[in-house]
Amino acid sequence: MANDHKGFTLWMTGLSGSGKSTITEVLIDEFDERGIPLEVLDGDVVRENLSKGLGFSKEDRDINIRRIAFVADLLSRNGVPVITAAISPYRAIRDEARTMHEETGAAFVEVFVATSLEDCEARDTKGLYAKARSGEIKEFTGISDPYEEPESPEIRVETHGKTPVESAEQILAYLEQRELIPARG
Amino acid sequence: MANDHKGFTLWMTGLSGSGKSTITEVLIDEFDERGIPLEVLDGDVVRENLSKGLGFSKEDRDINIRRIAFVADLLSRNGVPVITAAISPYRAIRDEARTMHEETGAAFVEVFVATSLEDCEARDTKGLYAKARSGEIKEFTGISDPYEEPESPEIRVETHGKTPVESAEQILAYLEQRELIPARG
Repeated sequence: MANDHKGFTLWMTGLSGSGKSTITEVLIDEFDERGIPLEVLDGDVVRENLSKGLGFSKEDRDINIRRIAFVADLLSRNGVPVITAAISPYRAIRDEARTMHEETGAAFVEVFVATSLEDCEARDTKGLYAKARSGEIKEFTGISDPYEEPESPEIRVETHGKTPVESAEQILAYLEQRELIPARG
Repeated sequence: MANDHKGFTLWMTGLSGSGKSTITEVLIDEFDERGIPLEVLDGDVVRENLSKGLGFSKEDRDINIRRIAFVADLLSRNGVPVITAAISPYRAIRDEARTMHEETGAAFVEVFVATSLEDCEARDTKGLYAKARSGEIKEFTGISDPYEEPESPEIRVETHGKTPVESAEQILAYLEQRELIPARG
């Protein structure tokens, strides 16, 4: 059990299908192997436990993201590493999450999973882009709803031609370098 | 900084005006003095950050309490002491909160602040009982809404004739005895 980790929030943002969840899976295994505690607040967990009843309008998305930020901040300022993995398409609300952390002294690491819309749509692992194109799903980020790219994220992961493991390694290297987790040795 | 505290959720329940918040204030000071970290999820904080828009119907209260339980469990299972101080009038939902903690291995300590309705109404510090009696406030616990007393809480605080400091001391003694916080020495 490594006790020299710190609390921080790894705030993943990116389009649906960009790889946020897959990269998070790799990070979960890696944290587990290294004996570092980790909580994951992914979109589904949060919508089930904190935001049931909210939809996907800008207003509802904003409320959802504020709740994720509130809980992530509570955990990270108490020394718990947290990954959030919601699309979080709006820059202003992500910046609000950042400010909330800054005010409580918790580390906030924005990770932009920069997969192009073309790549996300080409994979379309859940078939959601097809439904968004046909109009079956309304308010779909990247198609009928905006995605505002981060302007200066702590980490920008260019996933094109990379495996999820390679993307996760880039994130781990950053966390080690910031001394938020112990170096592998 | 005491590092031998454990994570736990101190789940305070009781009527409006029973003394939950005042006792919590004493505990906050005491934890601070002893160098033990503590997060407080009181009704107002939670309604602002997690449950804006919810009302006071049974359904909305239940959702609110489930969210508090979710966050309290996240914190306590990660070693953070938490106090929740919402009325939480319904037994079934409190028991759900308990089960959630049991499933994740987090300690759950139910504290029934057993102030009689007569005492709460006689004080009526916020003038809420008067408004509930006049019908200006609907769905008020103890007047127009039920309060279901805990059947076997870990701690039952009989506040009648006791100061908040004395009530807090009873709680601290329990936490010490359970070794959830270090003994005073």
